[in-house]
Amino acid sequence: MALIHGGDIFTLAEKLNKKDTEIMDFSVNINPLGLSPKVKKALIEHIDLAVAYPDPLCRKLIAALSQQHQMDKEHILCGNGAADLIFRLAYVCQPKHALILAPTFAEYELALSQVGCEISYYNLKEETDYKVEEDLLELLTPDLDMIWICNPNNPTGQLTPKSLMLRLLRKCEAHNIQMIVDECFMDFIEEDSAYSMIEEVEKSKHVTILKAFTKFYGMAGLRLGYALIGDKVLKDALQKAAQPWAVSSLAQLAGVAALEDISYKEETLSMIKAQRTYLKEALKRLGFRVYASYADYLFFKSPIPDLHKQLANEGILIRHCGNYRGLSAQYYRIGIKTPQMNTFLIQALEKCER
Amino acid sequence: MALIHGGDIFTLAEKLNKKDTEIMDFSVNINPLGLSPKVKKALIEHIDLAVAYPDPLCRKLIAALSQQHQMDKEHILCGNGAADLIFRLAYVCQPKHALILAPTFAEYELALSQVGCEISYYNLKEETDYKVEEDLLELLTPDLDMIWICNPNNPTGQLTPKSLMLRLLRKCEAHNIQMIVDECFMDFIEEDSAYSMIEEVEKSKHVTILKAFTKFYGMAGLRLGYALIGDKVLKDALQKAAQPWAVSSLAQLAGVAALEDISYKEETLSMIKAQRTYLKEALKRLGFRVYASYADYLFFKSPIPDLHKQLANEGILIRHCGNYRGLSAQYYRIGIKTPQMNTFLIQALEKCER
Repeated sequence: MALIHGGDIFTLAEKLNKKDTEIMDFSVNINPLGLSPKVKKALIEHIDLAVAYPDPLCRKLIAALSQQHQMDKEHILCGNGAADLIFRLAYVCQPKHALILAPTFAEYELALSQVGCEISYYNLKEETDYKVEEDLLELLTPDLDMIWICNPNNPTGQLTPKSLMLRLLRKCEAHNIQMIVDECFMDFIEEDSAYSMIEEVEKSKHVTILKAFTKFYGMAGLRLGYALIGDKVLKDALQKAAQPWAVSSLAQLAGVAALEDISYKEETLSMIKAQRTYLKEALKRLGFRVYASYADYLFFKSPIPDLHKQLANEGILIRHCGNYRGLSAQYYRIGIKTPQMNTFLIQALEKCER
Repeated sequence: MALIHGGDIFTLAEKLNKKDTEIMDFSVNINPLGLSPKVKKALIEHIDLAVAYPDPLCRKLIAALSQQHQMDKEHILCGNGAADLIFRLAYVCQPKHALILAPTFAEYELALSQVGCEISYYNLKEETDYKVEEDLLELLTPDLDMIWICNPNNPTGQLTPKSLMLRLLRKCEAHNIQMIVDECFMDFIEEDSAYSMIEEVEKSKHVTILKAFTKFYGMAGLRLGYALIGDKVLKDALQKAAQPWAVSSLAQLAGVAALEDISYKEETLSMIKAQRTYLKEALKRLGFRVYASYADYLFFKSPIPDLHKQLANEGILIRHCGNYRGLSAQYYRIGIKTPQMNTFLIQALEKCER
């Protein structure tokens, strides 16, 4: 299997003969605060939950999510990370023709290709800062079964305005297209309700929203994501398309504890905001072209060739975006980390040969 | 979603207004010793592994499994529990016609039905103690794509001799049928190498073996299973049929620690053996028809109507087998637990109204 994503600290550690934990990983967009103290405490206190089968219905977690989003439980399905739900959507919906952004998160295309789906692309353009614009509406034609929009988009960090998202949804309804909105990074946006499509879920059978604990709550290794699904028939089919125990006991427990930790949420938002500004300014000063970002990562174009290789030699992993459809080898993405880590990265960048 | 399996302590706890942990759960076949002390220590010490993405290639775990089974790594694929791999097999192989035992573990049929597969049954019979016999060979016809054999079988506990398994495999090869052997309970058999089909994996493209840490290592809540796959092309396809991060970091860590804990393994085998004998004799004394079992559970026929309901009122959950294909409401399965728990069960059974 080819490793195409960020986060492969294992290969670099092996190469540099270091421990996995000695790699400074900017290639992933995980909350740099690590586990919320409440989550960590809950996991350690209840580690013996690892023994019994998990609740197939995720009752406690879904009750907490239902309250969090003020949404009927019947629309909520939890998965082994949002990526699990991406594959289930492909296998259950079996779309013949789907539209995705380019560049965007790679797993949509990988999942769709497993079911022989024809894929069309909305090519984001450098001249419009890789933003989704109104011309996307023209591509929503009746022969389409599905559209996937990552908002804010990964790796570009760009946010599509809600007014445009709503117009897209209305056209999806008219042409019977299922609209999958990946809002896994929406939690990093303070005024998220002005952008999120969550309010549409109980109103439209044509929208499905993907969310994750992975990034915001720093638990990528635990695997926990969920979908908010407008069409209850689709929700039931997605549930039947996998084993009953897809979500581990520890992930369910951690999810409930995470939602209760309000101070972790506030600390995260304020730290990411301050560090985003710091990193953005520093990168610009170093001559990089940095794009507007609304999430916990920054997307930039580098005049330095093979920047990632130079940093790898220092034990720093950044996301080289050359393998994203529609991006050249000059593009990179970095996750926003703690002040210490970010300063370390900037110092390493200053030393790079040009 | 209907809850058809054992392990649903959550519904009973709700009904009796008790905590989940207050339910005495004999309905699942999980090692009653709980987590191995080495696994528990590793999990608590490395709980922060929950933060970073898991290694998509499960490198450390697969290296340990490769050594454990003396098998080339290329044949090994880890999953989010063996049940994850059951669904992947159905989606990837898309069999048109499959043969399964009746009764057997319900997830094979549930997964196959997701891909519209026609299912035939080898009906195990009361008069031959629900054993797989030679007449199964006659059902392996060229129109078949797949056969699933659980060995020892769940819920019956019966073991199919290796000589017969090998004859079945030869016929599968002749007719191009993929043979899935679920050996999730084989670890409970001391002389397992005399029964396991593991040695055939490197010799035949027609055999796939399913294994799990769930039961023997008492980690059903963590989710960790794996497949040993003869056909490397099939292995690659199964890997691509899911997200790269299907196995959590904690499950990978726990798996490696579990394989190192030899004393836990020995203690488990000796306790299960002694308690199997105790429970079997006690059940017989109480007038139940108990079948031979080679795993960590016992299968029996009860003359007492609604036995499970009487026990549920006492906070004891046992597996009512009435919803298995081919079994009547008189059949039950109990997991073998610690001496204290087993004694408690027998005392409760003595008090049941007849």
